[in-house]
Amino acid sequence: MCGIIGIYSDKNISKELYYSLYSMQHRGQESCGIAVLDGENINYKRDMGLVGEVFKEDELSKLKGNMGIGHVRYSTAGGSHMANCQPLVGSCRKRKLALAHNGNLVNANYLREMLEEEGYMFQANSDTEVILYILARYYKGDIVESLKITMDYIKGAYSLVIMGEDELVAVRDPHGFRPLKLGKKNNEYIFASEDCAIDILGGEIIRDVEPGEIVVIKDGKMKSYFYSENYKPLKKSCIFEHIYFARNDATIDNVNVYNFRVKCGEILAKDENINADIVVPVPDSGWAGAIGYSNASGLKVSEGLVKNRYVGRTFIKPTQEEREIAVKIKLNPLSTVVKGKSVVLVDDSVVRGTTSRQIIQSLREAGAKEIHLRVTSPPVQYSCYYGIDTPNRSKLIASNNSLEQMREFIGCDTIKFLDIEGMLDATEHKCTFCKACFDGDYPVKKIDKEELL
Amino acid sequence: MCGIIGIYSDKNISKELYYSLYSMQHRGQESCGIAVLDGENINYKRDMGLVGEVFKEDELSKLKGNMGIGHVRYSTAGGSHMANCQPLVGSCRKRKLALAHNGNLVNANYLREMLEEEGYMFQANSDTEVILYILARYYKGDIVESLKITMDYIKGAYSLVIMGEDELVAVRDPHGFRPLKLGKKNNEYIFASEDCAIDILGGEIIRDVEPGEIVVIKDGKMKSYFYSENYKPLKKSCIFEHIYFARNDATIDNVNVYNFRVKCGEILAKDENINADIVVPVPDSGWAGAIGYSNASGLKVSEGLVKNRYVGRTFIKPTQEEREIAVKIKLNPLSTVVKGKSVVLVDDSVVRGTTSRQIIQSLREAGAKEIHLRVTSPPVQYSCYYGIDTPNRSKLIASNNSLEQMREFIGCDTIKFLDIEGMLDATEHKCTFCKACFDGDYPVKKIDKEELL
Amino acid sequence: MCGIIGIYSDKNISKELYYSLYSMQHRGQESCGIAVLDGENINYKRDMGLVGEVFKEDELSKLKGNMGIGHVRYSTAGGSHMANCQPLVGSCRKRKLALAHNGNLVNANYLREMLEEEGYMFQANSDTEVILYILARYYKGDIVESLKITMDYIKGAYSLVIMGEDELVAVRDPHGFRPLKLGKKNNEYIFASEDCAIDILGGEIIRDVEPGEIVVIKDGKMKSYFYSENYKPLKKSCIFEHIYFARNDATIDNVNVYNFRVKCGEILAKDENINADIVVPVPDSGWAGAIGYSNASGLKVSEGLVKNRYVGRTFIKPTQEEREIAVKIKLNPLSTVVKGKSVVLVDDSVVRGTTSRQIIQSLREAGAKEIHLRVTSPPVQYSCYYGIDTPNRSKLIASNNSLEQMREFIGCDTIKFLDIEGMLDATEHKCTFCKACFDGDYPVKKIDKEELL
Amino acid sequence: MCGIIGIYSDKNISKELYYSLYSMQHRGQESCGIAVLDGENINYKRDMGLVGEVFKEDELSKLKGNMGIGHVRYSTAGGSHMANCQPLVGSCRKRKLALAHNGNLVNANYLREMLEEEGYMFQANSDTEVILYILARYYKGDIVESLKITMDYIKGAYSLVIMGEDELVAVRDPHGFRPLKLGKKNNEYIFASEDCAIDILGGEIIRDVEPGEIVVIKDGKMKSYFYSENYKPLKKSCIFEHIYFARNDATIDNVNVYNFRVKCGEILAKDENINADIVVPVPDSGWAGAIGYSNASGLKVSEGLVKNRYVGRTFIKPTQEEREIAVKIKLNPLSTVVKGKSVVLVDDSVVRGTTSRQIIQSLREAGAKEIHLRVTSPPVQYSCYYGIDTPNRSKLIASNNSLEQMREFIGCDTIKFLDIEGMLDATEHKCTFCKACFDGDYPVKKIDKEELL
Repeated sequence: MCGIIGIYSDKNISKELYYSLYSMQHRGQESCGIAVLDGENINYKRDMGLVGEVFKEDELSKLKGNMGIGHVRYSTAGGSHMANCQPLVGSCRKRKLALAHNGNLVNANYLREMLEEEGYMFQANSDTEVILYILARYYKGDIVESLKITMDYIKGAYSLVIMGEDELVAVRDPHGFRPLKLGKKNNEYIFASEDCAIDILGGEIIRDVEPGEIVVIKDGKMKSYFYSENYKPLKKSCIFEHIYFARNDATIDNVNVYNFRVKCGEILAKDENINADIVVPVPDSGWAGAIGYSNASGLKVSEGLVKNRYVGRTFIKPTQEEREIAVKIKLNPLSTVVKGKSVVLVDDSVVRGTTSRQIIQSLREAGAKEIHLRVTSPPVQYSCYYGIDTPNRSKLIASNNSLEQMREFIGCDTIKFLDIEGMLDATEHKCTFCKACFDGDYPVKKIDKEELL
Repeated sequence: MCGIIGIYSDKNISKELYYSLYSMQHRGQESCGIAVLDGENINYKRDMGLVGEVFKEDELSKLKGNMGIGHVRYSTAGGSHMANCQPLVGSCRKRKLALAHNGNLVNANYLREMLEEEGYMFQANSDTEVILYILARYYKGDIVESLKITMDYIKGAYSLVIMGEDELVAVRDPHGFRPLKLGKKNNEYIFASEDCAIDILGGEIIRDVEPGEIVVIKDGKMKSYFYSENYKPLKKSCIFEHIYFARNDATIDNVNVYNFRVKCGEILAKDENINADIVVPVPDSGWAGAIGYSNASGLKVSEGLVKNRYVGRTFIKPTQEEREIAVKIKLNPLSTVVKGKSVVLVDDSVVRGTTSRQIIQSLREAGAKEIHLRVTSPPVQYSCYYGIDTPNRSKLIASNNSLEQMREFIGCDTIKFLDIEGMLDATEHKCTFCKACFDGDYPVKKIDKEELL
Repeated sequence: MCGIIGIYSDKNISKELYYSLYSMQHRGQESCGIAVLDGENINYKRDMGLVGEVFKEDELSKLKGNMGIGHVRYSTAGGSHMANCQPLVGSCRKRKLALAHNGNLVNANYLREMLEEEGYMFQANSDTEVILYILARYYKGDIVESLKITMDYIKGAYSLVIMGEDELVAVRDPHGFRPLKLGKKNNEYIFASEDCAIDILGGEIIRDVEPGEIVVIKDGKMKSYFYSENYKPLKKSCIFEHIYFARNDATIDNVNVYNFRVKCGEILAKDENINADIVVPVPDSGWAGAIGYSNASGLKVSEGLVKNRYVGRTFIKPTQEEREIAVKIKLNPLSTVVKGKSVVLVDDSVVRGTTSRQIIQSLREAGAKEIHLRVTSPPVQYSCYYGIDTPNRSKLIASNNSLEQMREFIGCDTIKFLDIEGMLDATEHKCTFCKACFDGDYPVKKIDKEELL
Repeated sequence: MCGIIGIYSDKNISKELYYSLYSMQHRGQESCGIAVLDGENINYKRDMGLVGEVFKEDELSKLKGNMGIGHVRYSTAGGSHMANCQPLVGSCRKRKLALAHNGNLVNANYLREMLEEEGYMFQANSDTEVILYILARYYKGDIVESLKITMDYIKGAYSLVIMGEDELVAVRDPHGFRPLKLGKKNNEYIFASEDCAIDILGGEIIRDVEPGEIVVIKDGKMKSYFYSENYKPLKKSCIFEHIYFARNDATIDNVNVYNFRVKCGEILAKDENINADIVVPVPDSGWAGAIGYSNASGLKVSEGLVKNRYVGRTFIKPTQEEREIAVKIKLNPLSTVVKGKSVVLVDDSVVRGTTSRQIIQSLREAGAKEIHLRVTSPPVQYSCYYGIDTPNRSKLIASNNSLEQMREFIGCDTIKFLDIEGMLDATEHKCTFCKACFDGDYPVKKIDKEELL
């Protein structure tokens, strides 16, 4: 997962890029970068670390430009390297380009092999470089034409912001897996993965970039293209953005994330007649679902787990014997709240099951009498090919265990997941979704064989 | 405000000090330090920054010891300097001492002048050095005797952990302004400002250190002393710890912080018959009160403000024109939740009123129809002399304005504070409190004239 | 200017790469990098800064490999950027490659345009990326064949070390502008820009890599190829390496640098009958010439300028008024030595003339009676296209001024340069040289027009 | 060893302090600090590291003041700690003081015990804190009076700069062990350990501060006092400053360091009739002596050892097997110069003998036929109590071995030291000296028993 931002203005916008990335820090904490067009040249800085660490006042003041793009990158296994920081910046046919990407191609390895066979040299380890190279290969001045060709090659999930020498371009793949919003503030155009990055600048949210759409800002004007004449939008918005990844203040493809999460809790509670004392959310992502569950069940919400607001990336790993510290440093059970109580524990999703298991164990040690785990999404049974960092199927608890086996492993008294139908109801059907992680119905097949699971 | 920790064990405890400080990071983000007794010598490291930044694996592994103390320090105006980092470490009469302090003396300047007049040289700018110098002056081997004399000199708020060459000592001032808990884990004794620092180690909470008590751990045994034979405990536990400063999982002087906060919200809502749609907490500290308010009023809690979890100390300050960014980077209103709604906005306290004003403005821009501010504590009208970083009276909104003037400045439709009686009821009277910030009834008079407000 | 190193061994050599780069730090202080082949993968680290700053024990221990290459890079105007750090690392046709380069192509821009026209995307700003891309384009498994083709394309100065998946390769351009030595230590092969990098490892110097030669180490054996069958070695060893750039302990193309420098001083002094008191070298590079001058003239050498050994890259620039500090912080005149004396000031070369002018002014202020500047190389009149960082012709003092004008600008009483013939005599004609910076006789014409001066 | 600086001016001098400390970096690389009086307050920064690393433009611009002092500190065994950084800054009797110290007391432990017994608390581990505490104890406004009393207490070597609220004071102990120069630049007074710190600012050297003198600059005027009426100057200037520690451009107590060093080489060579080919200095400190030896013997100086100019504090230590790298990274023998030659190797001093041994071994490996070690100072046989970091006697090679044993250990063909008489002749008897390290004739006895060797 990543977050992207692009701004086209008539004044210096490097600080705006900074604030927008700062607001999307939850979409990626590993590395970040900003590239701006300073009249003629593209200046950029990208490094490992949080936005607030990488960019200081004096460096930001050197990155001057009226147009620019930015990126925050999530840490995915193995690929943690300076060379994978974005935006990528380069030149081809004497034209400069910068590109930032959120998503994951399903045929990156195939395309990379194809290009390597033709003599191309890859310097990083990312599918983003594949996109850049194909784009460059066909880019002779008309960015829309080269993008249409590029989009014929690349398959999978990609939301892109691209900066040429006189235009800012936003692209969303034909399925629209990853979000991309368009905002406006006076004469300024803003593209961003999430609403908060536009809100922070005082901008107005205009709309989602459409699946398959290419939006070009040039000479102060916006034009919209689609990647093919025969194109039919295949709307497959990633439901996991709504469940877990996006902030509560995002609205993606017309579905408001917070409302959706509350509604998931409400629907999950609807048919239940559980005999419990309190509803306890797993912070922070379980709060909205817990409020929904409380609304529908009439059970009161209590803060039974206290989150340490200062747990960051810099933390000395506990040894094997100190294992319980690893959970408690993040979440400490509030024993006065849970002691002797029958608790409905609400979480937004269960992936491996190990964190749930540890939380439940610590709640039991704090004196909880009964623990009923309620998950406001269906069991995750399939890996994601489109950019969500789900592990290999073999590590997904729901992929290898019956509900009873899961309950036993996690250690709760009862367990219940929201079903797929309920989840879709919670979206009020304002969009269609990719829900492959729940049902294995992949909208685009994976082509790179060696990565098949 | 600060957090302190002390551990006495029969094994190396530097990593335990680290975890405990990490869990108390909310009590101070400016600087931190650890001092351990390595058989003979006191080794220490203290620096500006967060616990996770200052201490890395290799440095921590050099700080070996079975006994040690630690400190996190809050940034208070003017005093931000390496020289003020704690624990203080020194030697007198060939005996080594280390000391960490939470609180604030009311006669530090007076004592400092007295000592300077006698030829003492002060190297830092803190009242902690005053305590250390008086302690050293009378320390001839019996730490309890010298502490009793020291406690006759120093007036005000102090919770201390002190490490001698063969003993660990915890002290709480006769009023018990600042918290100090005693925990145990097998043969290990732990003193800490808050429960979470003991929980994290898997320790058991034993009790509060009593006001006026001196607890000594030596030769593996614990002994308790009081600072004077004629001593009568003056229990004046700081109520602001319960309202704002401590974590929800703390229990201070028998009052559980979370329960107290919820109850404050309940009591505040009791007599109201407000015509509103939703209850919105100011995150994070307003959540417990909002839940209480919801419980009592029947109005549903909604997350109307989204908090950026990554806002830290490293953030480039917006310019004057970008002022609204400064609030939004922390708290973004969730317009789908508040648009067209009559909102009960719950906060734990109002000090200057400027943050409330900005939050309310951004909620209005997001479409809130009515905003009713409900504060789950009384108006702060007096400065604190005992260690809470309240500003000068002239900057306290409640000290200079009528309720109606406050409402107007803040910009809400209605405003209501919990009254002192209600607040005390919420404690269930399990302790007596210092509530000078609300009523000006200072348990100990300020002696240092030049600092009077 | 840069320094390169390549090691092929049967044991882990990352620390050897480190020591070798450390010894060649004088060849580049801007950035450095190491890439090693760990069985299967190429791991690398490259960053801005000195070798001792960039590589720490723990990071170096992660770079394990029996084969590896390294690079130190000199700061050249404008190109200071992370993206220009070397070695470059990439993959093409599923084969991994790493490459480090010392030198400068004369047709880099031309080739880059050609490649961009074909759709290649350049991500850095260096001619090294051009070499890598052409190499990749023709690399189908046989590195020697692809190198031969590459060497047909690229014109100018290049010494290269290249690491493939099972071979280490060293290449020197047909003119042999930049040095490249071959050393051996037991079963280990070492390629390095200078002798000191082989000495430091206790290796034995075998010989220079020949102009136009491709040396391949594979399966523990060394094989030598030449880039073309019709190839005639064009030996044009850069004389400026001998004059200024290389360390005194280097021997390049059979000419020992120290002996050469002493001899330059001797030849310069030969016909002179100067009436002076002492010979003063400009430290450090003027010492060898000064010793030669002293030998031949019979005048004694005295240290009349003291160099600050700690002046590094981190130094706050003096303001305009503090200008004289900028020289004195580096070189302070020793007034007891020069006061009232007639001084022969010996420097290895004069480029812009501004430093000489400042040194002479400070010697005058220290009381020197007469100053006779003697330069142990001819006047620099032409820019270098082959990797020496000489400025544009307009800034070369000798390119725009008569000898008398130079004397006047610099402010010395008399001035004398070694002539070209004398300089070549000092080499004992053991090699043929590129001396274009002195006589404009460029062995390879510059093709990239826009960079012509 | 340390370097100190003090400046009194009518304009902001923080940058001058910076340049002066930078020029004295050779006197201490472990830590540095600057304290300035900003009208009312003493602001300061001190940290581990080189001057260029610790002070950056923005931080220096915050240290504003017309008066200030600075310090660079040498790394001595065991005492490496933030708490030992100088200047020390504090307040007593409401008066602020800052103090920087070069030297070493012989009764620091005794005085410290005395003060601790009276109840003083020491927070660092240095004799400088002892001086500060005694000074503070007697300081009631008249700095000269309190200094006279302090100087009665403290014994040993101390050059001090002290900043009060309206005066700058320089003090040199009655023996004048450590240097301290007075300079002037317009209305500005400058005190510094060495001439270069005054030269760099364009100041004029006025004179040495006299042994036992207290120089006070107040209200723009200079006054001189002596510590006692009956005082007789005991001139015992440290001869090791002249031999090794000071820069060549220093003149201490009327003896110019460079001239002295050359003369030592000349005297050493005088009676010799050695049959050798070349004189090779051990860089950098052996150059002046080698030039002297060459002058007197007629043998030519050649650079036989090349020094790496970039060896700094950040260097990964070689393992036991890589031992020879440790020497070669610093000094690489120049085999073309020494091969087959009979070499006179000139060094300024021999302390442990281990470095000489390694240098000689590497010269032999480079082909030197004969090596005659000539040392331009007498054998070091006694430890220094006055601030030079000589090791314990047991580690001094000359203290435990005959000349022949030393020759054998070091591995040279012949060895010869300058004798004490020759050394004193080289000073031209312009001053009297402490030469205890050579003859054990300590001007002040060591009082702290536990530190006796």
